[in-house]
Amino acid sequence: MEKREGEGEGEEEQVVNPWTVSAKGGGKIDYDKLIDQFGCQRIDQSLVDRIHRLTSRAPHVFLRRGVFFAHRDLSEILDAYERGEKFYLYTGRGPSSEALHLGHLIPFMFTKYLQEAFKVPLVIQLTDDEKCMWKNLTVEESQRLARENAKDIIACGFDVTRTFIFSDFDYVGGAFYKNMVKVGKCVTYNKVVGIFGFTGEDNIGKVSFPPVQAVPSFPSSFPHLFGGQDNLRCLIPCAIDQDPYFRMTRDVAPRIGYQKPALIESSFFPAMQGETGKMSASDPNSAIYVTDSAKEIKNKINRYAFSGGQDSIEKHRELGANLEVDIPFKYLSFFLDDDAKLEEIRKEYGAGRMLTGEVKQLLIQVLTELVERHCRARAAVTDEMVDAFMAVRPLPNMFN
Amino acid sequence: MEKREGEGEGEEEQVVNPWTVSAKGGGKIDYDKLIDQFGCQRIDQSLVDRIHRLTSRAPHVFLRRGVFFAHRDLSEILDAYERGEKFYLYTGRGPSSEALHLGHLIPFMFTKYLQEAFKVPLVIQLTDDEKCMWKNLTVEESQRLARENAKDIIACGFDVTRTFIFSDFDYVGGAFYKNMVKVGKCVTYNKVVGIFGFTGEDNIGKVSFPPVQAVPSFPSSFPHLFGGQDNLRCLIPCAIDQDPYFRMTRDVAPRIGYQKPALIESSFFPAMQGETGKMSASDPNSAIYVTDSAKEIKNKINRYAFSGGQDSIEKHRELGANLEVDIPFKYLSFFLDDDAKLEEIRKEYGAGRMLTGEVKQLLIQVLTELVERHCRARAAVTDEMVDAFMAVRPLPNMFN
Repeated sequence: MEKREGEGEGEEEQVVNPWTVSAKGGGKIDYDKLIDQFGCQRIDQSLVDRIHRLTSRAPHVFLRRGVFFAHRDLSEILDAYERGEKFYLYTGRGPSSEALHLGHLIPFMFTKYLQEAFKVPLVIQLTDDEKCMWKNLTVEESQRLARENAKDIIACGFDVTRTFIFSDFDYVGGAFYKNMVKVGKCVTYNKVVGIFGFTGEDNIGKVSFPPVQAVPSFPSSFPHLFGGQDNLRCLIPCAIDQDPYFRMTRDVAPRIGYQKPALIESSFFPAMQGETGKMSASDPNSAIYVTDSAKEIKNKINRYAFSGGQDSIEKHRELGANLEVDIPFKYLSFFLDDDAKLEEIRKEYGAGRMLTGEVKQLLIQVLTELVERHCRARAAVTDEMVDAFMAVRPLPNMFN
Repeated sequence: MEKREGEGEGEEEQVVNPWTVSAKGGGKIDYDKLIDQFGCQRIDQSLVDRIHRLTSRAPHVFLRRGVFFAHRDLSEILDAYERGEKFYLYTGRGPSSEALHLGHLIPFMFTKYLQEAFKVPLVIQLTDDEKCMWKNLTVEESQRLARENAKDIIACGFDVTRTFIFSDFDYVGGAFYKNMVKVGKCVTYNKVVGIFGFTGEDNIGKVSFPPVQAVPSFPSSFPHLFGGQDNLRCLIPCAIDQDPYFRMTRDVAPRIGYQKPALIESSFFPAMQGETGKMSASDPNSAIYVTDSAKEIKNKINRYAFSGGQDSIEKHRELGANLEVDIPFKYLSFFLDDDAKLEEIRKEYGAGRMLTGEVKQLLIQVLTELVERHCRARAAVTDEMVDAFMAVRPLPNMFN
């Protein structure tokens, strides 16, 4: 474990783990503090420039704008890549809901960019076992959601010749299970209590789960893909709330003779009601879903997107919008690709020369296009395509 | 849970769980007390007679002599069998050693009898994952031992058309893993601490293991054998130290819509040094191994088998042997099939008319034959036969 302070419950008032994200006193997450607590590194401009240089293409907007803001060993992955050594990508999703919201798409949009930019294979874990335990879904319902979510993931445009999507209920076993046991042997119950905050009343299924999320970090868990390439490095794009799993994984890796996975970690996508709010499945107005109609998107943004603009036009013209809390501007900074346009909004809206209504109009346009594009892509995903992505098969051209 | 008192560590001085068997004050295990603690039932003569009647064959010597002495729901299994309903057998072994000793053979000899008498299918679990974690063996070494032990098990004479042997490292996954998650969801960490005595410093692999041993009790864990027969009952022949696993399993079963497994449980096979001794891998003289030569068997019994005979011939003629502690007599009561002969020894040796040397002579003869028969059978077990028993395949004639 690289850094232990602040794990689980403790003296820290800011709690970030895979199931709880809550800021001190209901305010904003302090990411600098989080980096310090977790012991990861900030992604600085020189690292972004290096990725630009190595991939010969503009870094993804999520990298340019600091959405993916922290890392572990990313420089080492790039060193190896520069020497001609390959790596693979690993990301995942806990399939707990029917429809994804925009925040769910972020790691997949970014992972698709990484896959294209570096021309590397990708494994995507659907943790239907996890959701069965944490959300108390039946096995069958968890598996159904996993397949539905796989369609949304495929709709992000992944390359089937380089991508293996798997459900834990389908795939756990064999080499994967052997690695689960190897990891489980190295982690005490007290350690998972420290990392994840489990209590004695938590079920042992939960206690058993961390190795399941750990072992896709090791190429030997996928003999049909990486047979014999046991030193292949792994890079994990994820939101920073997943860091506890991979701190644990990185701690265990050298003890069982494996490479530590590298990480590239994002901040959280804010709720419509503002950074201090939570996107919640029980409040459909807290997020834009990929199933929302154009009318719903327009209505949600106009009615619920928290504005940093002033109460009156006069005051707004005088003071300008508070971009630190303005959700339309935040959302545009995630999804508006045009840097010049975003910079113009920052200046004009921030100075009060642009009104919230105009910014919301642009956001409605950007998100409607994004969601409609996603819906068209998803509608084109057949069951055969899902089977193709999820087939346990070699990927002979995965590095080309 | 049918009965909770006395589980794990506590006020009871007698500790019996899958890893520790120790009697109060270093004495003998009090089986009556154990039955009371665990909440299982004694097998009485009427139950033995009923099995005799139902199977139209003499009950196995282990049943006649009370080696298998306790049960859970055995009467219900027999009721169902009498109505024409089928069941299946489940037993297993933790493959931690190269060579088995006689105590290891007992459940398999008895299970073979049950399979033949009731004409039912059998699944045998080799818990290589468990031994990897508890004995700190490598995955590869655990799997090698599992295959070696499978050869000894097959040598007991199981019918390949009715028997599926599996290693956890090979077989965990799919329907089996789904049942593991279902069980894991129903058992809290506090509960496994109560049942098995885990501590916070135990690794989470151990905490994850009880569902692995639980789910072979459910037919849906074997879709290739019992697809669709979700109500098929399961009978588990095992030593009583395995009861904690199946108390847990029986507690969970109705909550996940499954039948509780029935149990038929044996007492422990005593060490050469006496009932208070332990058969220990680190002391080869504490047990007869199936790899021992005739000379080794003779030597071990003559030198180490604890005698209940008196110090001098005169005293022995006067007082007779104490059969309660006499190991040669105990061992004969396990392995000498001839009831009349055993009864004669009980009378003659107990009365001092027979000497320890004579009893040991007979035991040497019985065990040498048994071990030589086993060795011949084992030598005939090929790798192809192991593959055949371990193949994931339907068993179309398993109830015939």
